[in-house]
Amino acid sequence: MTKLAIIAGQGHIPVDIGHAAIANGHDVVMMPLEHQADADYSSFQTEPIGLANIGRTRKLMLDHACDAMIMVGKVRRPPIGDLRPDVDGVKLLGKMLMRGDDQTLRLVAEYFAEVGIKVMAASDIMPDRHLAIGLVAGSRLGKQNRADIDLGCAVLDSIGSHDIGQGVVVQDGRIISIEAAEGTDAMLARSADLIDKTASGAVFVKIPKSAQDKRLDIPFIGLETVKAVVDAGIRVMAIEAGGVMLADPREQVIAACIAGNISLVGLKPRNQR
Amino acid sequence: MTKLAIIAGQGHIPVDIGHAAIANGHDVVMMPLEHQADADYSSFQTEPIGLANIGRTRKLMLDHACDAMIMVGKVRRPPIGDLRPDVDGVKLLGKMLMRGDDQTLRLVAEYFAEVGIKVMAASDIMPDRHLAIGLVAGSRLGKQNRADIDLGCAVLDSIGSHDIGQGVVVQDGRIISIEAAEGTDAMLARSADLIDKTASGAVFVKIPKSAQDKRLDIPFIGLETVKAVVDAGIRVMAIEAGGVMLADPREQVIAACIAGNISLVGLKPRNQR
Repeated sequence: MTKLAIIAGQGHIPVDIGHAAIANGHDVVMMPLEHQADADYSSFQTEPIGLANIGRTRKLMLDHACDAMIMVGKVRRPPIGDLRPDVDGVKLLGKMLMRGDDQTLRLVAEYFAEVGIKVMAASDIMPDRHLAIGLVAGSRLGKQNRADIDLGCAVLDSIGSHDIGQGVVVQDGRIISIEAAEGTDAMLARSADLIDKTASGAVFVKIPKSAQDKRLDIPFIGLETVKAVVDAGIRVMAIEAGGVMLADPREQVIAACIAGNISLVGLKPRNQR
Repeated sequence: MTKLAIIAGQGHIPVDIGHAAIANGHDVVMMPLEHQADADYSSFQTEPIGLANIGRTRKLMLDHACDAMIMVGKVRRPPIGDLRPDVDGVKLLGKMLMRGDDQTLRLVAEYFAEVGIKVMAASDIMPDRHLAIGLVAGSRLGKQNRADIDLGCAVLDSIGSHDIGQGVVVQDGRIISIEAAEGTDAMLARSADLIDKTASGAVFVKIPKSAQDKRLDIPFIGLETVKAVVDAGIRVMAIEAGGVMLADPREQVIAACIAGNISLVGLKPRNQR
């Protein structure tokens, strides 16, 4: 039995992971991030933590005899002036300041590994939260849809090495929007005004960054994403089957796509394309 | 003396080009695009045209004995359903539908070249609307500013071949936003909430797409851009010296940067970096 610490960001995914971990026989201590975690953690043993109190967080894990940890849930980068780091936080922050999200998370993982706390992936706990490869819901894609998906993947591949965006919207060979720090939902929302509703259906493509470590920052899509896709007037959602996790149960996501008249596609992983 | 047709999109730049062309000894016929051109064209000989009436537009140019044309000013892509193309418009639209902006414009240029109408660049008429290379206004850059500019250029280089975005905002090694179809000002506006005001200054980098033909779609920045940069809390604006034109006179842009406490930098062209 693993004693698992879950560092919890925004949304309900950390709670889902916690329940799944307990069902899998793990012992769980939940560590909701102050000013970030916003779900109901009352059914778990909890130790609230500050984002920059990394020394204290590691000590808490050792006190609880944790041998593994998961970081899950979106985390807003707060202004540096608000961070109030502890001693180890100051040391790590110095290294982190000039880096993107990936490199920052990698430094955090190394810091916990130093004392034998293994970083696990959300998919280790919830392997059922992935799509199959191919058409999963909705009507079959047209030739233009497939060409737009290929173009979207090519754009994401070309910027993935820069530790940015995992999402893109494409219509008729034209790149409508690219995600950077604003997040998927904001990108989908602004696409609404840029999509030509009289032309063929726009596609939304989401794949992990090429350098992304699945244990550290796996992208999620769920019912809220499906709603944002429908609201933006997009007709096809294509996500990397093994590289993007589902924030909600698969059958619920599929049902929402069917109800919204969206085709949902699982893409082969990048290295198999 | 050249008889020059100016196909005019949004903003005051086509008017500036028209006056400069006349001052340079050209004869000008102004062709404001319906539902797009929004400046005062009353001091010019005008022939309003529809975006999809490309056969009619070419015939008008031949009737006026034009031997050159310039396309200038931003053009919104209208819904395909609104276009109402003429016969030649239908032929060209079929070729254009699946293409990005660059390829679309290249097809248009070829269509006019077929009858001997040469496509000129805005910079042929207004060569003074460029920045010098180096620091043009404001305080000297820090090491992090320069690293952020290099990162911004690398991102733009990697996506430039996909016929998208020419703008990016970077802070402390992190990509804040990337421009696609929404335009520079919208990208700058959304950056405001993503920039850390307590950290070192964010930079805005704008360079032409790698495949961009300067005669067809040269990017512009002007006083409105400077205002958007100031409003977003960005401290440095770096644009390719020969590749991005100034929508307003250089001394006005420099004065606005100084007033807004922004450093303005002219970057070497991509092939000299």
